[in-house]
Amino acid sequence: MGSKSTAKRADALRSIDAIVQAAAECLGRNPEASLSEIARAAGVGRVTLYAHFASRAEVVDAAMSRAIDRGNEALDAVDLTGDPLVALARYVEVSWHLVDQARALLVAAQRELPAGRIRELHSGPAARVESLVARGRAEHVFRTDLPISWLVNVLHSVMHSAADEIRAGRLTSDRAADHITATVLAAFTPPGKPVPQPGAGA
Amino acid sequence: MGSKSTAKRADALRSIDAIVQAAAECLGRNPEASLSEIARAAGVGRVTLYAHFASRAEVVDAAMSRAIDRGNEALDAVDLTGDPLVALARYVEVSWHLVDQARALLVAAQRELPAGRIRELHSGPAARVESLVARGRAEHVFRTDLPISWLVNVLHSVMHSAADEIRAGRLTSDRAADHITATVLAAFTPPGKPVPQPGAGA
Repeated sequence: MGSKSTAKRADALRSIDAIVQAAAECLGRNPEASLSEIARAAGVGRVTLYAHFASRAEVVDAAMSRAIDRGNEALDAVDLTGDPLVALARYVEVSWHLVDQARALLVAAQRELPAGRIRELHSGPAARVESLVARGRAEHVFRTDLPISWLVNVLHSVMHSAADEIRAGRLTSDRAADHITATVLAAFTPPGKPVPQPGAGA
Repeated sequence: MGSKSTAKRADALRSIDAIVQAAAECLGRNPEASLSEIARAAGVGRVTLYAHFASRAEVVDAAMSRAIDRGNEALDAVDLTGDPLVALARYVEVSWHLVDQARALLVAAQRELPAGRIRELHSGPAARVESLVARGRAEHVFRTDLPISWLVNVLHSVMHSAADEIRAGRLTSDRAADHITATVLAAFTPPGKPVPQPGAGA
């Protein structure tokens, strides 16, 4: 019986993994992708999908969690040391690329998941920016008259607003990182200090 | 028959108005308010509600449109002449108050309506900021290295991110307008120029 249940468990894990991967792909193309489409793309029946996920929200949550895990791996590779302005520009470059890739998935998440859950899923990326902002404040490069949590949220909002602008056809994806960096570096500048020129310190 | 249909039409208009007002109130308290709750608050039956609105999205759309119309009236009273920094601070003060009042309704709208429709509903407020930003650019107070549409979207994103921070319990409503103004004035500052001090030019 032991090996039988082991095999069943391995089967279940394979199905779950295939469903989550298919969900990330299907919802990444179309935020309204149906569970039937996702099951088909995963090569499993709808009954199997419903055996593992109680609702569409659970599927979206799992796909979003997977995208964030991948994102955290990519962000691990970003050098956040040195000049905080340059480090922030590097962070924006990589994380914008991740947001851009996950734009449709994010729309699905915003529709299906409570805002608190989306924030919770982003706590890994948020912690990275928090440390960087804290260091930039200690080095008098970033402003200290607004809370760190506020500045981190501003960065994420500006990034998501770039995704909106692209959807509205008013911005192209290749110019977005520059727009975000220029905006956020200015927003983070202490009152009385000059806004950094583009590419400053690079 | 003329006066009968006139009376019927007046009845229908009264019902629709009561439903939209009740929807704005109920959704303003709880973004998940049901159509039955809204019908009850409006003093009409569910059948009457469904006779006028085909879906929950239509009710949310009507409530949101009503809130925006009221908002446009309030914004008409704001003096956007004079020093662009001071005018922007005045705009933020009033429009943040409107966003703050409509926070729950906005959550309902974000869930039920496509992003394009929400943007369309905000075109009145957006046009006001566009003119103000264009004037500030002409007067060399606001940056010209980023498009006007981008700067307007940054303002709205920062405002909505304040609403998120309040929901997350990390910001109080009374401090939000100052945070938004300080952030946006910095974000709008031309590279190389100093970020205005709080209350600058006031």
